[in-house]
Amino acid sequence: MGNKIASFGEVMMRLQVPGHELLSQASSLNYSFSGTGVNVAAALSHLGHDTYLVSTIPDNPVGDAAISSLHRLGIKSSFINRNGASIGMYFLENGFGARPSRVTYSNRLESSFNQAPAAIYDFEQISKYVDIVHFCGITLAMNDAIRSQIKSFAKTAKQNGCLVVFDCNYRPSLWGESGYEKARAHYEDMLHLADIVFMNEKDALFTLGMQTKEKEREKQLKELLPAIADQYKIPIIAGTHRTIHVNQIHSLRGFLYKNNSFTYSKEMSFSVLDRIGSGDAFASAIIHRELKGYSNQKMADFAVSAAVLAHTITGDSPLLSEKDIIQAMGKGIRDVER
Amino acid sequence: MGNKIASFGEVMMRLQVPGHELLSQASSLNYSFSGTGVNVAAALSHLGHDTYLVSTIPDNPVGDAAISSLHRLGIKSSFINRNGASIGMYFLENGFGARPSRVTYSNRLESSFNQAPAAIYDFEQISKYVDIVHFCGITLAMNDAIRSQIKSFAKTAKQNGCLVVFDCNYRPSLWGESGYEKARAHYEDMLHLADIVFMNEKDALFTLGMQTKEKEREKQLKELLPAIADQYKIPIIAGTHRTIHVNQIHSLRGFLYKNNSFTYSKEMSFSVLDRIGSGDAFASAIIHRELKGYSNQKMADFAVSAAVLAHTITGDSPLLSEKDIIQAMGKGIRDVER
Amino acid sequence: MGNKIASFGEVMMRLQVPGHELLSQASSLNYSFSGTGVNVAAALSHLGHDTYLVSTIPDNPVGDAAISSLHRLGIKSSFINRNGASIGMYFLENGFGARPSRVTYSNRLESSFNQAPAAIYDFEQISKYVDIVHFCGITLAMNDAIRSQIKSFAKTAKQNGCLVVFDCNYRPSLWGESGYEKARAHYEDMLHLADIVFMNEKDALFTLGMQTKEKEREKQLKELLPAIADQYKIPIIAGTHRTIHVNQIHSLRGFLYKNNSFTYSKEMSFSVLDRIGSGDAFASAIIHRELKGYSNQKMADFAVSAAVLAHTITGDSPLLSEKDIIQAMGKGIRDVER
Amino acid sequence: MGNKIASFGEVMMRLQVPGHELLSQASSLNYSFSGTGVNVAAALSHLGHDTYLVSTIPDNPVGDAAISSLHRLGIKSSFINRNGASIGMYFLENGFGARPSRVTYSNRLESSFNQAPAAIYDFEQISKYVDIVHFCGITLAMNDAIRSQIKSFAKTAKQNGCLVVFDCNYRPSLWGESGYEKARAHYEDMLHLADIVFMNEKDALFTLGMQTKEKEREKQLKELLPAIADQYKIPIIAGTHRTIHVNQIHSLRGFLYKNNSFTYSKEMSFSVLDRIGSGDAFASAIIHRELKGYSNQKMADFAVSAAVLAHTITGDSPLLSEKDIIQAMGKGIRDVER
Amino acid sequence: MGNKIASFGEVMMRLQVPGHELLSQASSLNYSFSGTGVNVAAALSHLGHDTYLVSTIPDNPVGDAAISSLHRLGIKSSFINRNGASIGMYFLENGFGARPSRVTYSNRLESSFNQAPAAIYDFEQISKYVDIVHFCGITLAMNDAIRSQIKSFAKTAKQNGCLVVFDCNYRPSLWGESGYEKARAHYEDMLHLADIVFMNEKDALFTLGMQTKEKEREKQLKELLPAIADQYKIPIIAGTHRTIHVNQIHSLRGFLYKNNSFTYSKEMSFSVLDRIGSGDAFASAIIHRELKGYSNQKMADFAVSAAVLAHTITGDSPLLSEKDIIQAMGKGIRDVER
Amino acid sequence: MGNKIASFGEVMMRLQVPGHELLSQASSLNYSFSGTGVNVAAALSHLGHDTYLVSTIPDNPVGDAAISSLHRLGIKSSFINRNGASIGMYFLENGFGARPSRVTYSNRLESSFNQAPAAIYDFEQISKYVDIVHFCGITLAMNDAIRSQIKSFAKTAKQNGCLVVFDCNYRPSLWGESGYEKARAHYEDMLHLADIVFMNEKDALFTLGMQTKEKEREKQLKELLPAIADQYKIPIIAGTHRTIHVNQIHSLRGFLYKNNSFTYSKEMSFSVLDRIGSGDAFASAIIHRELKGYSNQKMADFAVSAAVLAHTITGDSPLLSEKDIIQAMGKGIRDVER
Repeated sequence: MGNKIASFGEVMMRLQVPGHELLSQASSLNYSFSGTGVNVAAALSHLGHDTYLVSTIPDNPVGDAAISSLHRLGIKSSFINRNGASIGMYFLENGFGARPSRVTYSNRLESSFNQAPAAIYDFEQISKYVDIVHFCGITLAMNDAIRSQIKSFAKTAKQNGCLVVFDCNYRPSLWGESGYEKARAHYEDMLHLADIVFMNEKDALFTLGMQTKEKEREKQLKELLPAIADQYKIPIIAGTHRTIHVNQIHSLRGFLYKNNSFTYSKEMSFSVLDRIGSGDAFASAIIHRELKGYSNQKMADFAVSAAVLAHTITGDSPLLSEKDIIQAMGKGIRDVER
Repeated sequence: MGNKIASFGEVMMRLQVPGHELLSQASSLNYSFSGTGVNVAAALSHLGHDTYLVSTIPDNPVGDAAISSLHRLGIKSSFINRNGASIGMYFLENGFGARPSRVTYSNRLESSFNQAPAAIYDFEQISKYVDIVHFCGITLAMNDAIRSQIKSFAKTAKQNGCLVVFDCNYRPSLWGESGYEKARAHYEDMLHLADIVFMNEKDALFTLGMQTKEKEREKQLKELLPAIADQYKIPIIAGTHRTIHVNQIHSLRGFLYKNNSFTYSKEMSFSVLDRIGSGDAFASAIIHRELKGYSNQKMADFAVSAAVLAHTITGDSPLLSEKDIIQAMGKGIRDVER
Repeated sequence: MGNKIASFGEVMMRLQVPGHELLSQASSLNYSFSGTGVNVAAALSHLGHDTYLVSTIPDNPVGDAAISSLHRLGIKSSFINRNGASIGMYFLENGFGARPSRVTYSNRLESSFNQAPAAIYDFEQISKYVDIVHFCGITLAMNDAIRSQIKSFAKTAKQNGCLVVFDCNYRPSLWGESGYEKARAHYEDMLHLADIVFMNEKDALFTLGMQTKEKEREKQLKELLPAIADQYKIPIIAGTHRTIHVNQIHSLRGFLYKNNSFTYSKEMSFSVLDRIGSGDAFASAIIHRELKGYSNQKMADFAVSAAVLAHTITGDSPLLSEKDIIQAMGKGIRDVER
Repeated sequence: MGNKIASFGEVMMRLQVPGHELLSQASSLNYSFSGTGVNVAAALSHLGHDTYLVSTIPDNPVGDAAISSLHRLGIKSSFINRNGASIGMYFLENGFGARPSRVTYSNRLESSFNQAPAAIYDFEQISKYVDIVHFCGITLAMNDAIRSQIKSFAKTAKQNGCLVVFDCNYRPSLWGESGYEKARAHYEDMLHLADIVFMNEKDALFTLGMQTKEKEREKQLKELLPAIADQYKIPIIAGTHRTIHVNQIHSLRGFLYKNNSFTYSKEMSFSVLDRIGSGDAFASAIIHRELKGYSNQKMADFAVSAAVLAHTITGDSPLLSEKDIIQAMGKGIRDVER
Repeated sequence: MGNKIASFGEVMMRLQVPGHELLSQASSLNYSFSGTGVNVAAALSHLGHDTYLVSTIPDNPVGDAAISSLHRLGIKSSFINRNGASIGMYFLENGFGARPSRVTYSNRLESSFNQAPAAIYDFEQISKYVDIVHFCGITLAMNDAIRSQIKSFAKTAKQNGCLVVFDCNYRPSLWGESGYEKARAHYEDMLHLADIVFMNEKDALFTLGMQTKEKEREKQLKELLPAIADQYKIPIIAGTHRTIHVNQIHSLRGFLYKNNSFTYSKEMSFSVLDRIGSGDAFASAIIHRELKGYSNQKMADFAVSAAVLAHTITGDSPLLSEKDIIQAMGKGIRDVER
Repeated sequence: MGNKIASFGEVMMRLQVPGHELLSQASSLNYSFSGTGVNVAAALSHLGHDTYLVSTIPDNPVGDAAISSLHRLGIKSSFINRNGASIGMYFLENGFGARPSRVTYSNRLESSFNQAPAAIYDFEQISKYVDIVHFCGITLAMNDAIRSQIKSFAKTAKQNGCLVVFDCNYRPSLWGESGYEKARAHYEDMLHLADIVFMNEKDALFTLGMQTKEKEREKQLKELLPAIADQYKIPIIAGTHRTIHVNQIHSLRGFLYKNNSFTYSKEMSFSVLDRIGSGDAFASAIIHRELKGYSNQKMADFAVSAAVLAHTITGDSPLLSEKDIIQAMGKGIRDVER
């Protein structure tokens, strides 16, 4: 049987131009609903857990569509409030080769989630019901009210014995000018509360403002992560290193710092169908395997395989069973199976 | 040769579920760009005029798509500013029979247009360049800054010899509670400035707060419109009466009050493909025919025929040539033409 | 708060040719998952209840898609077994005017549900958990094993204090030659167990083999239903009368026999977008209103309004809130709402 | 077993805007291949005959697509030449209500068929192989070379004992100014050769230039058709009368003049999905029933039923089995069949 | 002029998710009809032969669509029976990179073809009419009745002087556990009857249970194929070796054992659009070139070029003219041709 | 502010099969409007200039769609005549890997543009209004009347002080047999009039019939271009060298001969989404940068970057802002930007 897992975050509507046309060329859009919390809850649901999103969605037809979509992804909606009038949206134009994909946000800060009053949530009740709560740096970037909610929820969860997960994913465009300075104290607060943290050496250097003389990212990692784990008393820190090659092939290697030791996954190379959501697949896989008590090496290999497969799934939410991920770990390239 | 006509208003993105599915059932949307000002400018462009939208649109890919779409509709973009970060949007789910169509707005008030500073527009320059300026009650409902812009533009246009057109189209949902009271003074200001006004007896009764003992709408019209024309010195007032029959067939009759006399068009019955934009087709046709100096009866018949045809065109913007409209006026039901 | 409701039945894959082409003209199909049990559970979920399908679905990608689809409809999957290798399917070609819609079934009897062993279900556990169980005549037509399961489930439910609902919907093509004779005893068994039954005078005459000298369907109904309610001790019997007019307009009137008295809804006329699933909408609405304790007249009017609206929704499953249905009851024809 | 039937005529590519958009709004087109000869051969193939198109199609990918499409319709391609460089095309924009459908032809006269040299066809060989040859007035309108080919083929067919069928369908736009005068002698030549002719009183009055004092079309028909049958020694003349009602409902009645007597089908009323090709369905049904030796009344009723059903099929080519047509003859309005 | 060629086998309906979505994400499917026999007949039709499928298809709208589709592919339907109630189906979800394509079969064994009685086919009549008959190992895997039919047909064909072609394509999932043992005797029977056989060293080792000390596939081939040709008196054995590279590029080399000597085609490398059907393209090309009397080297190069091109065509059936294949043989990479 | 630029040429309708199907497999087409003149005007409009197409388009719905499409691309239609009955069309089937894309033209020579009388254009008026006029070798290939128009326009433009641009793009299929000989004198006439010429060493060798002993294309270029610049007094000659690698990757290097010196851009490698229109992107970028007075190196690098990006845009017309192009120049491969 699975665990009960809640993630706290916004549901965004993704409006994607089909194929490779620009918004100024096309006349239709495919839509889906995503967000880091959604992606993590969807992934963990497909790994056999009961997952809940803690969020606020408008009580109108767009909100109904979002709820239907969350259900379809296997997420339970018992902790979702219906309030406010709009949902955050982003437009996605697929890139091709030399032309990068373009994301255009629309009215994110005015969304139901970002305008919801703290009183709308009963964090105590949720924390008593679930085993794990997941938070992320994107939500932390929204506004002061949200930052206050996220910390209040994390504290309540901690007090009620939940495992607290925090994914640092820092987005420069959300924090604006002098963003690292603005963000630092909030990140530090979250690190003090977290049991599992997703980050890499860049977060240490920029967001936390740490320093090192090392130049290579692996050496930086080796120096900085143990210091962080020590300072904030974090049992598990994990993350990935991505390399993008000239021929559009990506490589990914996962790492895990746990019990004072580093573990690296094997590096996997792959081509990309849908870039968004692979970090959430990695995080979900680490959480799942930690819950199941796997060894560090198996955990890391499984998580990087999950992240790689997430690049081959349309949409932001990874929809992968444990069997799919294990199959991709072991095998080389395969012909059609019939 | 045509005239130079500017309309002032917002460009909205219409996101329509294809076919008859609900937002919670579908996965794609058709998008187009519209708005009363857009519709009027598009219609008058197809009737042979040089038309300009005066508006503000974000300088991002969504804004680029809006500009391309306006060009495609035949509208010139010389008086459009690129500023701000978002565009107003609405979702449209097509009704069927007993189930009405549903419109869900998203973040209209935060749009580039509704947040644009007055200083962004050079109303003086525009007024010297064009012959006619068109305003509408929807724009008037937005906020105080926009109301100030609209009146400033209308005054400047009047001073520079432009014909000022005002379409009353009052939308209860935009003005909120006690909306008629809030709106009244602003409508009165616009009526004082306008040369051509689109309205019917309901605007007189509710928005202007006039009173009558008559119970039938035609008698109310006959009593109230002359009083308004007289009070505000309005040369032309026009509008339509719609009847919706049990079998989903609509009927429409246009009226025109000009030179102290009423003219009624013949009543036309028709089925509806796309409800939105028919009022703008009527208004555009009246403006066009007034510019061309047609008789009142021909003007009314032409305008109601334009409105009827607009119900048979996909999208909000009527794309009809003078020939199309005249053809629909004269003929009965026709077999395929080949 | 809502009730807990389980329905027992097959999930079918509907493969529908888009638009009005024939299978031999087209090259794509829209697919969805439905069935009487699915439709009833989906409808009651949208009316605020916790609904469960009791069924068997293959553990393969087609089964995964079915589960996702049930979740999307708001149905919980806790009582669904994953077993067997295939799902029942039907192809649907939309008719137009003089050309009727065509349904072609494929391998229904070999489906996971129809081949599942009885031991796969824990009817006792389910009956203890839910308040109501819904069965239908379509499931009863499948094979002896299924008939045995359905009766066993109904008895267990009854013993555990559940309300038992039985919808007679007799399908001649499923029972084959001398079908009424084959079906009679099974229907009688179910009527003895049921608290709410959906049927009309045709079921009485043909399936139950009752006789009357009356010629008009309303008189037949008035004579036969009380006799059935009496004989089988059925508290509530309800159903509809449909009339199809020359111009493709349908009319529907609901009736209800409860506490020894007949109640008729008002008759509603309407045009049809999607014919399938309207009977399930009627049944769901009766169940919902009975649970809420409404008066007979309000129950009947509400249920026929739900059935009418179901004709305006794409797909088999009615996705209507109580508000939507009440709105359609009260109002006449409406213009677009914005 | 069926007969061997050849039709002589052009294959045209139909490029249809999906839904109800205009060419200037849309960005995709559905394509199919049709033409009177194609439609008649397709319909007779679905009625159980071996059918052949005698035509010329370019030897390029567009021609390959046309051949595939003819095969799909059940037409054999043994008598089709591959020559020239292009195919006639027409764009079709679907009308709605008050807005009629629009057909725009492109380069019809430069097509492979219309430019093919007579020597390309071996009419003698074809005439010896088939039982029936079908010609139409549209082909006759093309150019002098085609007119020469059509008459040469008809004479050869006659000499070899084939039944010669001629459908008068006169298209004013193809003959241009003083078209009736230009066409008359050619039509007279064909009438002298034909065994079955499709026409009505308008062809008699305008194309043949006959005169009558009658005002009603049925009386004109009764006076003029016997005279034509007598003058040109035509065993069978048949045709239809169409009425288009205000509510977009069409009515159709077929007539047949054979053995000096008139037979009228019952009149059928219906709504229209695809207007084009219904005349070809009528003609095919008459040919089929004449070959089978049915009574005049049954032939007429069957043929008008085929024409009505053809209005409910997407595309120009009627794809109806004898069973489909008979089913539509007998029954009233039907509910979904399952 | 071409030859007359019959292939014996099932028509399957392929239901493919468009793009790269999973069945649980999408809502539409593209459908086509295929099968080894269909693919071979389609390919040989495009190479100029008269081709016939010998099969059984239900007499319902799905069967009608299958027939239309076969016609479209250029296959004649004179030897197809209409019987039974269903068609075999498979769902295809396209893989991407690390995620392989998934095939899910539905009710294959209950299909019209697999349930058809032997008496339905007149193998004698067919064998007298055609020059070549094609069989394959997939059909052989179905059930005992089908195995009996296939052998009876092959014997009759042989006796009537037809060339008998047998493609070994062994599918493990169809034969189940201990499949090789179950299959061996049936394969041996077919090899005794065949004039052209498609196989490689794996068939020799596993299906026929032969042994060798060689480790490399080319050496195994060189040892085993001559022995088989000798033992079963097979004039021609041919096949391919595929290599799948890390970057998703495939390489293919064809081989041919004829007149006691091996011929290898050049190896071609290529990227893959649609994997299914390439073996059938290779087989068809060998048959075609053997009929035309080409040299072994030209035959092998042509056949591997046909197989490569088949990977670039959407759908299972290779639609390639001789010109297309020759063009791909000679040239390197080409820019757009215009 | 931008310049005023006119291009002279045909508008063609591109009818493209979606995805990778053949015309004989698909049933829908995407359409757009293009042509060298269209592409250049669209590109320069997106670079900030006022651009005009000088052309002739039929006055029918297809022509209306073309006009709308030009507007959408940012091209002004003031110098477009509405005349004649048809537009040139081409069908495009997308290739894949070993299978090249196929272009099939339809009735190009009968188009409105190619049949338009010279008197329809007022070249004098246009030349006085604009700063630059663009011509190309494709238009020059059409017929004698068009050749006469193009030279007359070029002379008038020159006399009125316009910059004359000529793109040699020679298409063998348009000039037919002995094409180079037919074309030579016309090309020489244009070179005498041109200020900016696009060509490479192949045009010199084949079209102009020049000779060299050099074997490598770069050496040929270095010898021949200075001679041409000298002979015809051409200030600027520019062009590109393309290399197509085995893995479908293309490389492109631009060159520029100006003020007696050669400049080469860096070479860029890239994968291709849409091959057509990249030469027009290069030419537009050179024109733009020359107008802005950039250095030769910056001009060449910018132009090759524009050409590369044009391969990543769907459709023939490059829709790139100066910012987009500069971004692609500087950067390496980028992850998604958000």
